[in-house]
Amino acid sequence: MASDGRTEFKYEQTPIFNKMTGKQSILFENPPFIIAESSVAGKKEGEGPLGAYFDEIVEDGYFGGTSWEEAESKFLNRAAKLVIKKANLKNSDIRYLIGGDLLGQLISTSFGVTDLEIPLLGVFGACSTMGEAMIIGSTLVDGDYADKTIAITSSHFASAEKQFRFPLGYGNQRAPSASWTVTGSGAVIIAKDSPPNRKVKIRIKGATIGKIVDYGIKDNSNMGASMAPAATNTISQNLKDLNVQPGYYDKIITGDLGHVGSDILIDLLKQEGYDISSNHMDCGIEIFDKDTQDTHAGGSGCACSAITFTSYVLKKMKEKEWKRVLFSPTGSLQSKVSFNEGQSMPGIAHAVIVEAE
Amino acid sequence: MASDGRTEFKYEQTPIFNKMTGKQSILFENPPFIIAESSVAGKKEGEGPLGAYFDEIVEDGYFGGTSWEEAESKFLNRAAKLVIKKANLKNSDIRYLIGGDLLGQLISTSFGVTDLEIPLLGVFGACSTMGEAMIIGSTLVDGDYADKTIAITSSHFASAEKQFRFPLGYGNQRAPSASWTVTGSGAVIIAKDSPPNRKVKIRIKGATIGKIVDYGIKDNSNMGASMAPAATNTISQNLKDLNVQPGYYDKIITGDLGHVGSDILIDLLKQEGYDISSNHMDCGIEIFDKDTQDTHAGGSGCACSAITFTSYVLKKMKEKEWKRVLFSPTGSLQSKVSFNEGQSMPGIAHAVIVEAE
Repeated sequence: MASDGRTEFKYEQTPIFNKMTGKQSILFENPPFIIAESSVAGKKEGEGPLGAYFDEIVEDGYFGGTSWEEAESKFLNRAAKLVIKKANLKNSDIRYLIGGDLLGQLISTSFGVTDLEIPLLGVFGACSTMGEAMIIGSTLVDGDYADKTIAITSSHFASAEKQFRFPLGYGNQRAPSASWTVTGSGAVIIAKDSPPNRKVKIRIKGATIGKIVDYGIKDNSNMGASMAPAATNTISQNLKDLNVQPGYYDKIITGDLGHVGSDILIDLLKQEGYDISSNHMDCGIEIFDKDTQDTHAGGSGCACSAITFTSYVLKKMKEKEWKRVLFSPTGSLQSKVSFNEGQSMPGIAHAVIVEAE
Repeated sequence: MASDGRTEFKYEQTPIFNKMTGKQSILFENPPFIIAESSVAGKKEGEGPLGAYFDEIVEDGYFGGTSWEEAESKFLNRAAKLVIKKANLKNSDIRYLIGGDLLGQLISTSFGVTDLEIPLLGVFGACSTMGEAMIIGSTLVDGDYADKTIAITSSHFASAEKQFRFPLGYGNQRAPSASWTVTGSGAVIIAKDSPPNRKVKIRIKGATIGKIVDYGIKDNSNMGASMAPAATNTISQNLKDLNVQPGYYDKIITGDLGHVGSDILIDLLKQEGYDISSNHMDCGIEIFDKDTQDTHAGGSGCACSAITFTSYVLKKMKEKEWKRVLFSPTGSLQSKVSFNEGQSMPGIAHAVIVEAE
């Protein structure tokens, strides 16, 4: 037993290296480095418990623009430029940018990255998109197709409400299980080499690409319930593929299950024989103060996991408080059209293994 | 001079192998094989010049369902199952599926692949999505992260009109520069090894990942004009990165520029010093008969390039009529919201180098 009561599995803690690991997982041959990260957050996020960790807080929800969508693009543009600046690089040093957002046809990303002139792979996995972007960005670097890539996502409370639910002007009542879409954008630069003088290096060791799991949830004010089964599937598959127990990770971090979805996740994983209750964290729970910020089930959106990871999580890792983390952003795959046509909301989750060394 | 009058560049026709080639291109170390392909087309596409090449033609635009979106998902689901069947494989033999479509939040793909239970990477590059999916699918295979992947896309005339323009019931007039969204879905299986008894093997040799290019076009009935500059950028970058001339390829195939966009592409590339007039082909021009099918500028949509490639193009390659092709699907990155907010329509194009051997 470890000092904190968690079971340690010494033997199983060293998965045998194989790029294709188990059924759905990847372990990298030369695990890429996260050499820089950026987090640009909105006003409400800045007032929350993680406010002090963000690189920038933008008070104006319009970001000086004239529409919510334009504002979201500006958040993403700022996060991209900031991460390049923090790494002391030029745009042309980044070979490919992998990015996405929640808006139809990824307009936040498209309009947000045009002026960077970096070749683009647009990706969509709803709120799991940051995980997907980091996985593709890492395979391109580890596989020698790129020396540096950016993974980036954005979301915006107002553009998301307009996209998925009701115009804000309606002043619609929110269900207790509803989450609050995070306004902001987070980015990382994934690179083959790390600057030599870093005391602590952050590396992406592997990943698990998730399947869609559909429990037939149809309530778009309860996305936690739609995503929890997918998170269960991906996290348990990661543990099986690597042949490790939950204690292998210092933290297992889900994207935006919120209070409702996190309880479901812990219950479902117990049924699979895995107890993550002592080392689970959910970005949606951390980012807002439930008691004072009126955010109900918690934060959600592509930016929820992205800016929590690129601020709070990476800080804890750089301090080596957490040495090994499973970062598993979670997504609920519906649109306004599919919802109005009475379809369910299938969930998906991807998982990225991040280590400090 | 070659017998057909095209200049041959013997020396330059063998690019030096390097996974990272030039500024934006990739050459694969062990070029993956396309071991199976499927094309499922709608009624109008079946009546067009390529009708005889498609695997299946579905006459009912609803595909037995109750909405256009459900129908599109069924096209995609059918193409996925068909390609797995044609390769004599089970769903579980496919490690990852990379797919996308034009609808907000990729609902055609999400609902179309759920029952396959294959881990999913959702991608979006508007009508360039098939190129993006094939590039990611190929890097995963060449990089040893997967033994087999599927790249798949879909589009549907009616769901696209509803998504981007007007309800069909309006009976809106169409501009001469407008294109007709192709109904259907195309898929390929990308694999590390080819079945041994194939006379002709089709391999993905490399790729160029495109940048967004925005010429400020705002007319969503003229997507050819918005995409042609991006296609110019990607194709000329591919030629520069590989240090070859257009004659290196038997065909340079764009996705859905149509008659308007193709003319622009040829003109713009001439300005860059490249003449592709003798070996250019556009899927949007090939798929419909301009004179009898009332499709104006030509076909468009994620499925336009996908089903043209997986039927007509691959047939020509298997017959070795074309040995080396640059397949460059083209996308126009707008949404209904960005259009209504007065934004431009930036373009993007990716390019995939496909060879028969």
